[in-house]
Amino acid sequence: MQKTKVVIIGGGFGGMFTARKLQKLCRGDLDIELISKINYFVYQPLLPEVAAGTLNPQDAVTPLRTLLKGVHVRLAEVTGIDLKARQVVLLQGQKKILQRVDYDHLVITTGQVANLSLFPGFEHHSLTMKDLSDAYRLRNRVIECMEMADVTRFAEIKQRALTFVVAGGGFSGVETIGELTEMIARILPQYPNIARHEVRMVLIQRDGRILPEMPERLSQYALKQLEKHGVEVWLNTGIQSATQQAAYTSDGRSLPTRTIVTTIGNGPSEFIKSLPIALQRGRIPVSAELEVIGLENVWSIGDAALVPLPSPTAAPVYAPPTAQFAAREAGVLAQNIVHRSRGQRLLPFDYAASGIMASLGGYRGVAEIFGVLVTGLPAWLIWRGVYIGMLPGLGTRARVGLNWLFDYFMPRTIVHMAESERPATRYLYHRKGEVVQYANEVPAGFYIVVSGSVEQQLDKPDGASQRRELRVGDSWGSRALKEGRLTQGKITALEDTKLLLVKSDDFQRLRNSYEPLNDLLAAHDR
Amino acid sequence: MQKTKVVIIGGGFGGMFTARKLQKLCRGDLDIELISKINYFVYQPLLPEVAAGTLNPQDAVTPLRTLLKGVHVRLAEVTGIDLKARQVVLLQGQKKILQRVDYDHLVITTGQVANLSLFPGFEHHSLTMKDLSDAYRLRNRVIECMEMADVTRFAEIKQRALTFVVAGGGFSGVETIGELTEMIARILPQYPNIARHEVRMVLIQRDGRILPEMPERLSQYALKQLEKHGVEVWLNTGIQSATQQAAYTSDGRSLPTRTIVTTIGNGPSEFIKSLPIALQRGRIPVSAELEVIGLENVWSIGDAALVPLPSPTAAPVYAPPTAQFAAREAGVLAQNIVHRSRGQRLLPFDYAASGIMASLGGYRGVAEIFGVLVTGLPAWLIWRGVYIGMLPGLGTRARVGLNWLFDYFMPRTIVHMAESERPATRYLYHRKGEVVQYANEVPAGFYIVVSGSVEQQLDKPDGASQRRELRVGDSWGSRALKEGRLTQGKITALEDTKLLLVKSDDFQRLRNSYEPLNDLLAAHDR
Repeated sequence: MQKTKVVIIGGGFGGMFTARKLQKLCRGDLDIELISKINYFVYQPLLPEVAAGTLNPQDAVTPLRTLLKGVHVRLAEVTGIDLKARQVVLLQGQKKILQRVDYDHLVITTGQVANLSLFPGFEHHSLTMKDLSDAYRLRNRVIECMEMADVTRFAEIKQRALTFVVAGGGFSGVETIGELTEMIARILPQYPNIARHEVRMVLIQRDGRILPEMPERLSQYALKQLEKHGVEVWLNTGIQSATQQAAYTSDGRSLPTRTIVTTIGNGPSEFIKSLPIALQRGRIPVSAELEVIGLENVWSIGDAALVPLPSPTAAPVYAPPTAQFAAREAGVLAQNIVHRSRGQRLLPFDYAASGIMASLGGYRGVAEIFGVLVTGLPAWLIWRGVYIGMLPGLGTRARVGLNWLFDYFMPRTIVHMAESERPATRYLYHRKGEVVQYANEVPAGFYIVVSGSVEQQLDKPDGASQRRELRVGDSWGSRALKEGRLTQGKITALEDTKLLLVKSDDFQRLRNSYEPLNDLLAAHDR
Repeated sequence: MQKTKVVIIGGGFGGMFTARKLQKLCRGDLDIELISKINYFVYQPLLPEVAAGTLNPQDAVTPLRTLLKGVHVRLAEVTGIDLKARQVVLLQGQKKILQRVDYDHLVITTGQVANLSLFPGFEHHSLTMKDLSDAYRLRNRVIECMEMADVTRFAEIKQRALTFVVAGGGFSGVETIGELTEMIARILPQYPNIARHEVRMVLIQRDGRILPEMPERLSQYALKQLEKHGVEVWLNTGIQSATQQAAYTSDGRSLPTRTIVTTIGNGPSEFIKSLPIALQRGRIPVSAELEVIGLENVWSIGDAALVPLPSPTAAPVYAPPTAQFAAREAGVLAQNIVHRSRGQRLLPFDYAASGIMASLGGYRGVAEIFGVLVTGLPAWLIWRGVYIGMLPGLGTRARVGLNWLFDYFMPRTIVHMAESERPATRYLYHRKGEVVQYANEVPAGFYIVVSGSVEQQLDKPDGASQRRELRVGDSWGSRALKEGRLTQGKITALEDTKLLLVKSDDFQRLRNSYEPLNDLLAAHDR
């Protein structure tokens, strides 16, 4: 008999802890697979420290395979769910091969994504703080700006390079600006042409106070600490738009800057929106037992789900989108899947947070634990302690602990890693006889023959086959991209051949923006 | 009186040590500036360890500013030298602003670059091992292949993903394949669907033995060690070409693989080739005193230079392109610059290497020190000791030492970092009144107006000024790129405007490959 198969989509707090708990509870009865776009579990509260260089990037994360012994881990991008066939549809590998994976139970824990469409320009000109590459990119940007400011002769460029803006005064925003401020103070001595007063740090917050989830007194303390260290906090101010040169606020102010970090505007991902589920408040509605309303054996937790809590009044209350809740939800969910598979009664989810805390950078923090308010160094130590404790794996804990210790004694490094740009247009070299493209693949982009020649072979539905030779200057691929379908023909190199490939996304952007190109393609493209 | 200004191009062994030594010798008499494309000093022999995850990327490198207190460090790309005006021409910052820097003494230490034009496809389908991002990319590629191989259902894809090829049996090639072999052996238990025998490691070497710079006996030992750990060594074999799917050798064999690392084929960079200096053997000829032949106060050392050694016979002997020699050359060069500025006699360069060694991965190495041959663990310990000793800065030494210690006790991490792809086509959002482009800038690429409108203002040489409005669908930039000149017009947003920018390189590749596009541009582009 085949084992019951549980497929979990997402490797964050919700997904990772569900897989771990299930593995413990099921005693080998279940076949568990976790599908994730990244192969590691990222501890988001540590990302500001990675951005600031306090932590090595690799130490804020742990590989999922290391955490999930006995669970199948698949690095892939889920594109859809076939509820009728009980299959997950996904793209796998560099060539984006389309696959289907069967499930008996499905768990959706893909979280939310930054949704910045309300603020023109933010999507293109601001950085987010969601995963390791984001932290990494922010760190590189700050160092790039410092290097630039140190050597430029233009006052305007210098000012813009030395202004750092964070949008959003919640946990992520406050921790980010706190860590950045400390980082810049520490690396400043290495830039002889930059004076302290030339650096400008601005935190933009829509509400009347920062850290609105915390007690008023802690918000006040945090505000004073930030201001003491030179951060300008713009309260009651919304963001309006962003360009390569400045951030603009809703009250009409503009801030010349090259660095904007956005920690606001979460919403459902394209994948969540594409599901045949009626979302509520941009989330998947689930029962108290965490099963998606109206669907059997499909479950959802974490930021992606709207999880009801027992309400003292008639008004519904929902679980907040925090790591603490996601981890607790995972425990109940794992039990419910096991209970369902054994025909036992499901448990409803209920939990009250035991504490709340934030780091302000520079060995200061704020915390509320079991109703007690703590500030300064003690709060910061609690913050560190709790996070070290929550880190999975002794190895990671030791590394992170040592890193923090080292950081105290050693100068902060200012290594600037050049971005590994994978150009959108790239040459591909193929030897005679190699297959460039098979039929029924996700199209890689638009191809042009630069030298040599290839053969296109189209198999018709009636069994007939059509062959055509493409020579220097000939192109193919634009139609499949336009119609959003899989490739139809098989392409084989007839001799040693060099091709230019324009990747799908870039090609589509160019085509959609540049009208005359479409007529050209209609006339020339095979 | 202005101080004598020494400008050093390049931050590798030659450049970095020259700057350090000069700073020590000159007692504040000189104004020293070092220009580098990256802001850190990279210790190339450690790159294979970074690729294998033994070392954290940030620990194999040290920021130049940290090493060079009192020296001006400029992060920029040098494009040329104006010998007559005694100026270095460079591009600076993200916007690539053109600048000129005056010099009295110029030191060229930019090394060599991988030149793979003789081997079709290698340029596009193989990885090199020159800087931190290379090591980083290789590491990510290996993990990507392992993830893919673990879940794919296709035998062909699995085999290709699990074949790793290194071209070149010198130091870099041997250390790279040694470290990779150890890394894969250590992470293999985390991939339950991959068996040890399915992994194939191949080292391709043109000569009859590996490590030809070493005594025969050590080559034999290294060969046996590699083979014992499962590496196939193909001796007397040249590379011929590479594709996305396979490596081809000069004797007609083909190896299906997705990962080719090239450690051969060094040559002069475009910058070195563009200099008004007659190169010899692809290098800059210098005198025994390290001054470029025929030019006063222009010096060159390291891999970029052809440095003569005292020869016992009539045949000329030149310094080998190693870190050891570059560091020694830097010492003599710094002295000669100081001597010249004080009117003292210059010193000729002379040095004999005291030893030679290589790591084979997995705590084994080979070394020859003062004529004594050492193998295995002792050689490996010497290797580590010498490298820790050569590392600049106590902080880095401590970090690297601890890293090595940790590595012995802890599982190797398999975190796969998604490449931060900066797409070649990107949207730019501009607010009304913002300047999109000034005149006399290096053109960023080809622009299309997606929404809104901009004004193009051309100032004619006769003082007249011409204005033109560009609206949705209009484009500009292709002419400046085609003619290789600076921008002529100033572009200002007339309202809130969204643009699509196709970056220069990508645009040029597309245009040159796709003939019909050129007619289109001639007709439409402003």
